[in-house]
Amino acid sequence: MPMLEFSSRLLEDAVSEFASLPGIGKKTALRLVMHLLRKDESEVEKFGESIIKLKREIHYCKICNNISDSEICDICSDNKRDDSLICVVENIRDVIAIENTGQYRGLYHVLGGIISPMDGIGPADLKIDSLEQKVSVGNVGEVILALSTTMEGDTTNFYIYKRLYQHNVRISTLSRGVAIGDELEYTDEITLGRSIVNRTPFDDPVNII
Amino acid sequence: MPMLEFSSRLLEDAVSEFASLPGIGKKTALRLVMHLLRKDESEVEKFGESIIKLKREIHYCKICNNISDSEICDICSDNKRDDSLICVVENIRDVIAIENTGQYRGLYHVLGGIISPMDGIGPADLKIDSLEQKVSVGNVGEVILALSTTMEGDTTNFYIYKRLYQHNVRISTLSRGVAIGDELEYTDEITLGRSIVNRTPFDDPVNII
Repeated sequence: MPMLEFSSRLLEDAVSEFASLPGIGKKTALRLVMHLLRKDESEVEKFGESIIKLKREIHYCKICNNISDSEICDICSDNKRDDSLICVVENIRDVIAIENTGQYRGLYHVLGGIISPMDGIGPADLKIDSLEQKVSVGNVGEVILALSTTMEGDTTNFYIYKRLYQHNVRISTLSRGVAIGDELEYTDEITLGRSIVNRTPFDDPVNII
Repeated sequence: MPMLEFSSRLLEDAVSEFASLPGIGKKTALRLVMHLLRKDESEVEKFGESIIKLKREIHYCKICNNISDSEICDICSDNKRDDSLICVVENIRDVIAIENTGQYRGLYHVLGGIISPMDGIGPADLKIDSLEQKVSVGNVGEVILALSTTMEGDTTNFYIYKRLYQHNVRISTLSRGVAIGDELEYTDEITLGRSIVNRTPFDDPVNII
């Protein structure tokens, strides 16, 4: 598609900004901007200011690197949570995903990425030193590695394991298996194979939803 | 999907704003906001301000209702364009689409919608009075109705035709036919039928791209 020609510089600027977001092309950007134009000025100002304010005032938790409105995030400062349990995740979207399950009451440690030589990301770019330090001094009993099951995820898991295993801490990972609601015939063979090897007793309460 | 739970009010506000846009759900909104968070503060401010500024400073051209940075838009104030020719369109996205063809050198008239009883939009909600006035006093020789070929578009075309035909002006509409590059067997029969009835001589330069 050729560059769209606009009769307005202001319109063009706003469309370019939206089109710079991932997965949004010029035409979609124009549709979004037109939608905003139909709204009241106060609503549009609220939109623009929420973005500026987010970037200007956001904190990253000093303990877990999770996104936060204050120095220490709500999860780390919640004394009802189990601080002997740390779940290691790639980014804050994973924190949100796990929080939404309502099944986890421990703390988190956000790495800020995974080891990916292709993208030039090595262990030094991630918050691994602070994780090791936390484990070496604190009362951490178990570290759950909750990274994605990709080559990069596996590499990072292995690297973290090598760093932590000397510190007398239990290291676990998410269970892998057939997704709930999935049909066996469409499950890939590696997942299905692992789900047979790691089978659980039928009366295990984990199986009852 | 249940509501996402965020550990940050600022994050939640920004995500809600993005999720209020058409076609953007909570998960996509979060992805876009995370993308903005990785950018520099100055870039994010430019983003937010471009939206606020657009809404605050934009004008609608007093002549054609097109979006504009000034009282009269660049198209209406361009004296190299043919002001005896007015192309009637539904909205400014259609102006952009036609401008991008590079084939049209007349002016526009943006209706701001089409007659749609289902949506409660009647002729009085559209800029039809000002179109009639323009035609009745000015030196307009031809009005091109460039609305979509839907029931609403046809209704609006017919209504405008009834209002204008007393004013001694030529009224035309876009030609309909098989799209360039389309295969005949996949063309719907109404379009194909009309393209046979309205066939053009083979040596017509319009056929040569």
